[in-house]
Amino acid sequence: MYYLGVDIGGMSIKCGIVDENGVIIGEKRTIVTPTTGGDDCVKGIADLCRDTVKANGLTMDDVTAIGLGVPGTVDGEVATFVSNLGWEDYPVCQKLKELVAKPVYAGNDANCAALAEWKFGAGKGYDNVVMVTLGTGVGTGFIVEGKLLLGNKGSGSEGGHMIIKAGGKKCNCGLCGCWERYAATTALLEAVEAEIANCPQGAIAQIAKDNGGFDGKTLFYALDKGDKRAQEILQNYLEDISLGLINISNIFRPQIMVIGGGISKQERVVKPLEHLINDCAYGNGRNPYIIVRPATFGNDAGIIGASLLALI
Amino acid sequence: MYYLGVDIGGMSIKCGIVDENGVIIGEKRTIVTPTTGGDDCVKGIADLCRDTVKANGLTMDDVTAIGLGVPGTVDGEVATFVSNLGWEDYPVCQKLKELVAKPVYAGNDANCAALAEWKFGAGKGYDNVVMVTLGTGVGTGFIVEGKLLLGNKGSGSEGGHMIIKAGGKKCNCGLCGCWERYAATTALLEAVEAEIANCPQGAIAQIAKDNGGFDGKTLFYALDKGDKRAQEILQNYLEDISLGLINISNIFRPQIMVIGGGISKQERVVKPLEHLINDCAYGNGRNPYIIVRPATFGNDAGIIGASLLALI
Repeated sequence: MYYLGVDIGGMSIKCGIVDENGVIIGEKRTIVTPTTGGDDCVKGIADLCRDTVKANGLTMDDVTAIGLGVPGTVDGEVATFVSNLGWEDYPVCQKLKELVAKPVYAGNDANCAALAEWKFGAGKGYDNVVMVTLGTGVGTGFIVEGKLLLGNKGSGSEGGHMIIKAGGKKCNCGLCGCWERYAATTALLEAVEAEIANCPQGAIAQIAKDNGGFDGKTLFYALDKGDKRAQEILQNYLEDISLGLINISNIFRPQIMVIGGGISKQERVVKPLEHLINDCAYGNGRNPYIIVRPATFGNDAGIIGASLLALI
Repeated sequence: MYYLGVDIGGMSIKCGIVDENGVIIGEKRTIVTPTTGGDDCVKGIADLCRDTVKANGLTMDDVTAIGLGVPGTVDGEVATFVSNLGWEDYPVCQKLKELVAKPVYAGNDANCAALAEWKFGAGKGYDNVVMVTLGTGVGTGFIVEGKLLLGNKGSGSEGGHMIIKAGGKKCNCGLCGCWERYAATTALLEAVEAEIANCPQGAIAQIAKDNGGFDGKTLFYALDKGDKRAQEILQNYLEDISLGLINISNIFRPQIMVIGGGISKQERVVKPLEHLINDCAYGNGRNPYIIVRPATFGNDAGIIGASLLALI
């Protein structure tokens, strides 16, 4: 039997057929038009599920259940708040069930990624796993004794909004000094942009100029050339990431932290973080070592994790 | 049947006889002489258990099991690190079991307090409860879906060492800017002391002078007189406490936060904290309300919580 994992993004919806080992055996995607409302979106998901199954030589009879990864807050079967899609208290599971006549489960997308990494990815074999995704924001997922931490009505797990520098940079959430404002890759890009403006003759500015602009790789090209400023910028960024990871370590003391997001592929990010955390977390080295590893799945984590909502 | 809850402090050990409703029906205490080592301490605990039972007209046959609240890290049956008692990887449960021939359980004392408040105190009836004790440090205990969060080898739950002001005040743990340095009652006393030094003619200094010195009540006497500076000092302190509580809210989104420590008896502390947290925690007011209440048990939480290690 197979499970369908549906990763609902702000721009597109991906549906994957996943077997009980977490392997995606086929997938399809469709474009999201959020303005059309929840019911049209769910109709689109139902069509996508059928199309995906058909394109892979299966029928819906081969599907045990469907899991939905939702980019917002999910309380049981209801998407309580999804700003990108304009959903409020939308009974997404019930609506899809009516169209596909299969059991439907839903969960927050960051939590889905944590499930995927825990069951089949970098966190496999551990009971206490923290997943931190560094992207345009910072997403967190916490597996505590083999169970996903949801919080009251599914509204917990917002670790990116820990205050680590009170009175610091303004965050979209309304507060100042949230971890996300320092640890998101956006923050690294801001630092690179500032460096280019401040040191137009520097190596980083030169690389940006040669490439017609800067992006997430600019700093790493400069590091490859041994540029001192690039090293300082990376070190500051890693220390800022570590602040939140230390806080999470002290509260959860997980066995392993899985770092997601494109930047986690950089050995120069993940290894130093492991050292920083184990040097600084509470207990002066007496407490158990915390492994830090890059995520296994990248973009597939959403589909695999969504299918796990149905599988476990 | 009864349970014995043993609260092992740095100065004294208290033993209470607790019934299955969490009611202490009798207690005794003894003085700790930590230098004598673990075995002598455990012998003292065994004697204390027998004395307590006898003094209340019972025998050890009336006792089902014994729970120990330990002021350090506990991994299952072993106290892995208790700095005040000089214990390292000390098999405290096994040692006591040999002397009393009863099942013995052990847990960290802050976690015991959380258990007590959750099962029989301010957090009764809720599944997601956070206990924060404001004392000379800041202790935390987290009940997640009706289960105590322990972390790998019992070494989690050190929320007092969340960094909230990176680069801020130096903490005993070796880092700077830990929540404990701002939210412990010690921090409030530091602020009062600084105020007395800076404004020797002010109301706070006058009250301290009249009382032959300052203590935890000095600020509240000044507040009773409507002193503006006292209001500012309290407001700063509450905002600092709220920083950590907001972080905990965003991660756990508990139904209720229970505030322990002597200062939690002050309505002027607990009520404003409830407002600050619900105004500032993630979700712009859409997420479920977080109740904040003072702890029910005070000093008895240790005994009741320790007995719960045996009871649940």
